[in-house]
Order: sequence, then C-alpha cells, then structure tokens
Amino acid sequence: MTTKKLLRALAGETQSPPPVWLMRQAGRYLPEYRQIRAQAGTFLDLCYNPDLAVEVTHQPIRRYNFDAAILFSDILVVPHGLGRTVSFKEGEGPVLTPIGLATDLDGLDIQGLLTRLQPVLETVKRLSQTLPSSCALIGFAGAPWTVATYMIEGGSSKDFAASKRMMWNQPDLFARLMEILTDATIAYLGAQVEAGAEVLQLFDSWSGILPEEEFKRWSISPMVKIVAELKAKYPAIKIVGFPKGAGLMYRNYVIDTKVDGISLDWTVPLEWAAENLQPLATLQGNLDPILVAVGGEALDQAVDRLLTVLGKGPFIANLGHGIIPSTPPENVDRLVKRIRR
Amino acid sequence: MTTKKLLRALAGETQSPPPVWLMRQAGRYLPEYRQIRAQAGTFLDLCYNPDLAVEVTHQPIRRYNFDAAILFSDILVVPHGLGRTVSFKEGEGPVLTPIGLATDLDGLDIQGLLTRLQPVLETVKRLSQTLPSSCALIGFAGAPWTVATYMIEGGSSKDFAASKRMMWNQPDLFARLMEILTDATIAYLGAQVEAGAEVLQLFDSWSGILPEEEFKRWSISPMVKIVAELKAKYPAIKIVGFPKGAGLMYRNYVIDTKVDGISLDWTVPLEWAAENLQPLATLQGNLDPILVAVGGEALDQAVDRLLTVLGKGPFIANLGHGIIPSTPPENVDRLVKRIRR
Repeated sequence: MTTKKLLRALAGETQSPPPVWLMRQAGRYLPEYRQIRAQAGTFLDLCYNPDLAVEVTHQPIRRYNFDAAILFSDILVVPHGLGRTVSFKEGEGPVLTPIGLATDLDGLDIQGLLTRLQPVLETVKRLSQTLPSSCALIGFAGAPWTVATYMIEGGSSKDFAASKRMMWNQPDLFARLMEILTDATIAYLGAQVEAGAEVLQLFDSWSGILPEEEFKRWSISPMVKIVAELKAKYPAIKIVGFPKGAGLMYRNYVIDTKVDGISLDWTVPLEWAAENLQPLATLQGNLDPILVAVGGEALDQAVDRLLTVLGKGPFIANLGHGIIPSTPPENVDRLVKRIRR
Repeated sequence: MTTKKLLRALAGETQSPPPVWLMRQAGRYLPEYRQIRAQAGTFLDLCYNPDLAVEVTHQPIRRYNFDAAILFSDILVVPHGLGRTVSFKEGEGPVLTPIGLATDLDGLDIQGLLTRLQPVLETVKRLSQTLPSSCALIGFAGAPWTVATYMIEGGSSKDFAASKRMMWNQPDLFARLMEILTDATIAYLGAQVEAGAEVLQLFDSWSGILPEEEFKRWSISPMVKIVAELKAKYPAIKIVGFPKGAGLMYRNYVIDTKVDGISLDWTVPLEWAAENLQPLATLQGNLDPILVAVGGEALDQAVDRLLTVLGKGPFIANLGHGIIPSTPPENVDRLVKRIRR
C-alpha cells in the first residue's frame, strides 16, 4: 500500500489526521508566488513555462508540507489548446473570443491539443520526479460545462445567459461543443496520467447554476464518460469531482459518476454529507475560503467541527473553493497545524 | 373562503390550474414599464411615487391577468429608510455608502423608517383598493442577511468578503446590525399589512452563499422571529420565504421558520421538493428566467414538467428568480396560457 496519505484517503481509508491540501495553494497569497509571477510575462506564459510552473507548484509544499501538490495551470488551457484566443486581465478574469457558430466549432483544432499543451505535460512529468515522496501529484481540468461557459460567454458571467441560450436554443450546436470538450478533456487528462499525475480533479465550477435536468445532462453525463474512459485505460487512477454549488444534486453526481472523491463547496452541511455522501466516496473540503482569510478562533472552531464530523470516514481536509489572494500565509500555517495537531 | 387563487394556494389548497405570478413581473421587459421609468427620474423616485408605482404594479396584471400583484418597490428602501445613502446606476446595480463601524449603526434612524417609507405604504394602500378582485396583493422586503450584505459591501458583490469578514471578525457589530434590520423589517412589513398587503414575501437572495451554521444563524433565525412576530400580530397574514440558493438547507428553512409558502430557485429538483417540502409548505417557482427569455418548446416542456410534478399539491407557478429584461413579452403570454390551459 502506498504511503501517500492522499492516495490512501482516496482508496477509502480513514486517517487521523487526514491529508490536507488547499485549492489554489500555489497562488497570489504567497509572496514567493507573486515574485515568480512578476517575472513570467502573461499568466498563460507562466502556465506554459515548465521551469516556473514547477517552481510555483513546489512553493506551498515547501512552506506547509501539504499532502498533495496540484499542477499549476488553468482550466482555460484546454480552449487555448484547441486554438481559441484566451487571455487573462489582472483582477478582471479571463477574456476569450466567444463561440457562437458552427464554424467556430469547425475551427477547433482537436489534433493539435496535446502538442500545444506539451509544456503543461512537461511540468507534470518534472513534478512527478521532484515532489517529496509523501506528496501526491494532482492533475486537473475544467469539466466540459464549465469550460463551455467561458468559451460561449467570452469570460466569466453573472447569469450565464449566453450559455443557457445556446443550450436551449441551439441544442445540436451546444451538444457538439460539449462532445468536443468531453473528448478533449479525456485526452488531456489521460496525457497527464501518462506524465505522472496520480489523482485527477475535475472542476465544474458553474454546475451549480444548472436546473436539475440540465445538471444531469451537462454536468453528470459528461463526467460519467470521463471517469469511465479514464478508469478503463488507467485502472489505478483516482478521480475527484468538484461540482461546485451542486447542492441537492451532489448525491446524484456521486452515485452516477462513480468518482473516488467528491469535493464539497463551503455550503454543504457536514452531517448531511457524512451520512449521504461519505459511504459512497471520499469527501474533500469544505472550509469557506473567506474564513481562512479571516483566521482566528472562528477558523479554529470551523476546523474542529469539520474534523469531528467528516474525520470519522475517508476525508481530505481542504477548502470549499480556492484560497483568496488576501489570505495571510500565517493563517494557512495555523490551519494546517490545527488539522495535524 | 376567499376566491383569490393565491390565498387559497397559501392556505394549502391544491388547484388546477395553479395560480401564477412572476417575480419582477413589473419591470424592464415591458415597453409600458420602460415608458413610465423614463418619466420618473431616479429608480428610487419611481419607488417613492405612488401614482407611478401603482401604475407599474398594475401593468402586468392588465396584460396577463396574473393571480397576484407584487408591490413595485425595492429591497433597498429599508436601508434608505434608515437614513443610508442608496442610489441605482442603470445596468450596474445599487450603490450604497458601506457600513463598517459602530458609529454607522448609531446613525441608523429607526424612528424615521416608516415616515420615510410612507410613499411606499401609500402605494400599498392604493393597490389594495384598485386591484381586480381575483388578484392578491403581495408586499415584500429583503431578508436581513441579504439587506445587510448590500449595506456592508456598498452594493452587489462577487464573494461577499466584506460581509463575511464582519460576520466572523466583528461578531458583535454584525449581530447588532442584523438585529436592527430584523426589527426594521418587522415594522415595515407590519405597516404593509395594515395598508392592505395580503401576502408578504421575504427575499433572502444571498442566503445561498452562507455555510451551514451561518445559514442557520443569519438566514433562518431572523426569519423565525419575523414570521412569529408578524403572525402573532396579524394572524391571517400569509408569508412566503425565498432563501435563494439554499439547496440542502431548504428543508431546515421551511421547518424552522414555519412559512406558509416557500419560493424555490430554478436549481431545486422537483421530485425532491414535492416529497420533502410540499407536505410542509406551499411551493412556489421555479422556472429558469433565462428559459423564459428563450421561450419555444424548451419552455413548454419545462412548464409541463413543473405542473406535472408540483401541481399535485399546493403550488404557485412562478420563476426561480426575477424575469430578465431581455424577455420577449410574448413568451410570458405563452407561459401563462400554457399554465392555464
């Protein structure tokens, strides 16, 4: 049996203390990250520079000895790898040329995807060779629905009106986009496994805005295919789903997709999750990132409650979403020490 | 027994067809609203002008013969009535001077609230005298947590960091603000009942971003007090809660608050709601507003499914959030006819 705590948790083992890592643990809250970021040109330049991407992935491991490192990259490298224009404006989020026509889909360069994303795969490979032996390597991708929203909206959105309009008004076009993204995601994640990723996490950050039927069709179904195909080809791979905001649909998601782990956003009630989800999958989460930025006793109490309720079964301590840039690094230290005491 | 379908539904009666009204039914999607809006000065000027507010409240009733009219106003008249600066920038949402200090709370003018909101109460009174006899009059307010977020953030927010920081970092200050808002809400809604409102809806639009414990403390608990005090004073009043995005907390909310009706956002699974909520309260909702803007057969199918699943018990057909400005008025006509056929 592996000695990596993260892999043992995802194999269903209950551990005390549980493994811990944080979403966006390599990021702007760390001064050493901001220093590298300042040297790197654009954000995508950083994602595509294996020397620097390996370094920033290592930074939080050196500081906090997390039980897992997550590849430093972004979910939007997939549309970029398919040939779309993607850029990041500091503080404003990503900007893409929106997709709206069948000809836009014809132009997606599926053949060129892995060639374009070769630098990311090189980063995975180097990480797998350099991380501490206790530290598991997590690869990741955005789930197709979430990636599709960025491609259709041209960036972030308040109400995802353009995405939903295409979904309901141009169902064939939308289905084709989703199929392309599902296949691209499988190819990209498979290549990450071959480069050394031991766990894969799929971020469906915007699944929580879908009505029930559309959630089943566009969040769950693509994930069923992704998990089935990757597990058929790489039986040892562990897969974590993060359908953020899924609320009442979390249980359907876990049952249908057969993920090994399920990442919970900060709104999921703990006793409910322990009773309804933990028998089916390893739980991961779910501290409110703003509470980590606040710190102090309110954070301590939330950590203790989290460990008390979810620590009785297979569990990975984490946040309910990415750590926010204003988080003092000493709060992360306090959090990690509290989990491990 | 009243012949008003909305009141019968809220008394627990199953009706076929169910009553129907739409959140934001008086609004920018109607050309006749835009015409009045253009004459009215600022948005708050419109809210405080009984002649015009009565007219825009009537407009959708004339067009669609809805079973209920909701007072034309805004949830931010309460902070404005307490003396805070509130303005609305077209297309950008509300702007308030943010609250952050104890002295800000000392300045809240609770005594002056109902005097400042007298024009809104005059609108309620005139509506109760002029609406068709089949049309119930709904008064409303924002729930304290949601109103507090606007007051603390100074407007809308992406992550509500300032509100959560105050909640966790300055718990006494935050509790005092919430107590003031709870009492102000009770006073304001009581005055609406005395002016002729037959139903009250409380919009907790941002309750869905709270973790479990904070949801109980800051969304449910104030609502428990609001419902209990209003029902003690006005035993006939019907109260609908709308904890948008509450997900797995919807059931706790219904059980604890003892609302007569519960408004469901568009993500709530229908069979789950029929089984877990409808035995406890009348359901209201929950079409995706963007689907109504899209229209066509996708809308028809969703309406049919909604009626099939929720129409077997006490139910009010509505949307899962406010109608969006780009909705073609003919789609609303199609929707209403489909519900009533």
